[in-house]
Amino acid sequence: MSELGKVYLVGAGPGAVDLITVRGAALLAKADVVLHDALVEPELLALCPQAKQIAVGKRCGKLSTSQRFINKRLVDAAQKYTTVVRLKGGDPMLFGRADEELSALEEAGIAYEIVPGITSALAGAASLGRSLTLRGVSRSVAFITHAKAIGEASNARQLFEKPTADTLVYYMGRSHASSIATQLLEQGRAASTPVHILESISTKRERNWSLTLLDLANVNTDPDSGDSSWQQSDEPLLILIGEALAERTSTKLNNGLQDSFALANRRRSA
Amino acid sequence: MSELGKVYLVGAGPGAVDLITVRGAALLAKADVVLHDALVEPELLALCPQAKQIAVGKRCGKLSTSQRFINKRLVDAAQKYTTVVRLKGGDPMLFGRADEELSALEEAGIAYEIVPGITSALAGAASLGRSLTLRGVSRSVAFITHAKAIGEASNARQLFEKPTADTLVYYMGRSHASSIATQLLEQGRAASTPVHILESISTKRERNWSLTLLDLANVNTDPDSGDSSWQQSDEPLLILIGEALAERTSTKLNNGLQDSFALANRRRSA
Repeated sequence: MSELGKVYLVGAGPGAVDLITVRGAALLAKADVVLHDALVEPELLALCPQAKQIAVGKRCGKLSTSQRFINKRLVDAAQKYTTVVRLKGGDPMLFGRADEELSALEEAGIAYEIVPGITSALAGAASLGRSLTLRGVSRSVAFITHAKAIGEASNARQLFEKPTADTLVYYMGRSHASSIATQLLEQGRAASTPVHILESISTKRERNWSLTLLDLANVNTDPDSGDSSWQQSDEPLLILIGEALAERTSTKLNNGLQDSFALANRRRSA
Repeated sequence: MSELGKVYLVGAGPGAVDLITVRGAALLAKADVVLHDALVEPELLALCPQAKQIAVGKRCGKLSTSQRFINKRLVDAAQKYTTVVRLKGGDPMLFGRADEELSALEEAGIAYEIVPGITSALAGAASLGRSLTLRGVSRSVAFITHAKAIGEASNARQLFEKPTADTLVYYMGRSHASSIATQLLEQGRAASTPVHILESISTKRERNWSLTLLDLANVNTDPDSGDSSWQQSDEPLLILIGEALAERTSTKLNNGLQDSFALANRRRSA
């Protein structure tokens, strides 16, 4: 029996090169081959100049490698190389389709290890400076995707079509965003509930939009209801909804103070 | 006006020293002072030997520093030092009580930045080798705490007492674990739904217990219903519940194969 390599499923994190874990970075530095998602930021691949780099996987709306083919390449790589890194955007165990790759490795008798990554929701909350949970306001947060995978309907069990939690984070929910907002209003959420829409989190291209649940519900029917320029974005979006994401009183106070300081400084330099 | 330092709220991750982010590790290495949770693993503090290290914060059931006092120490530190790191277990924006510290910093006009961390649920899923979401089985996961903070009842808005999502992860839910399981059975979850209970995730002390939702509901009434030794644990627990966490068919197959190999090897060496 020939020696088989080991496969490391590594979470790349949200995008910034230094938001990968120390363990993930060390594995990239010693990898013989790195099979990475097309969505992974190019800067991250600078952490593994010695490795053979192979782009695989999906990019929404673009050409993609089929999961079966990715599985085969992973198994092939482990039969040829000692240290194989499969670099996946965010965290491998959350919306990462890791299960199918792990099954293939298990069936081929190949050892593996999983290294978690910072998922976008946590990096997004850090970027906004808002907690996903908040004393007296939110004790639960749900991470949700509405993207229905191809062929899923046929073998789908009964899923919770309307997950409920104090804070809700939708991954890649652009096309359903407005109808989700309408549903949430019907369920009794306040029209004023804060909504933040983020793209390219933690990268230089990061953008965010802050609106209310009512703005989001009305986006198709009332073009003047808040800034809807996020609809033109080509990037995957993260949509955060909940009272915990409201502006802090102290933030308002502090912004006010800073504005007074800025004004005073401007006067002084004039 | 004196120069004020900058405060970095850094997520320490689940425990293992190399599951902090590269950015977090770099900030620890250059910090003048590090105010860390009592729960943070000692190995992590070896990343900041040059810094003044101050233990603050909560440890369940043990002596704790009041939040108001932590806030004051943070502000004091920023008035004295250039680079202040506030190191928090897991991720700062998820069950991290970051909001109260950020409010204090904002009121004092102190600049801050938040560095996300790997939350236990992601490290736990990596350790189990199970995805929190799974095609056709789970499109949502909720992270939940049932720990009611002192004085919370008085100012609490209406929270979702029973969050629903395909996969559920409870943080520190030991005392309510059995009643949560009973509730979930009443809501129609299958008695066979997989449950994993984890402690000290990613450290050398990591332990886990696998049972069913029915086992968990019966833990107080039927002592023979599965292994209940997790109840004697002193560590914070993570409880993962959902069909996505079931053993893969390929895992069973592969374990079977490995057992045959092991058996064949033992025979050979005998």
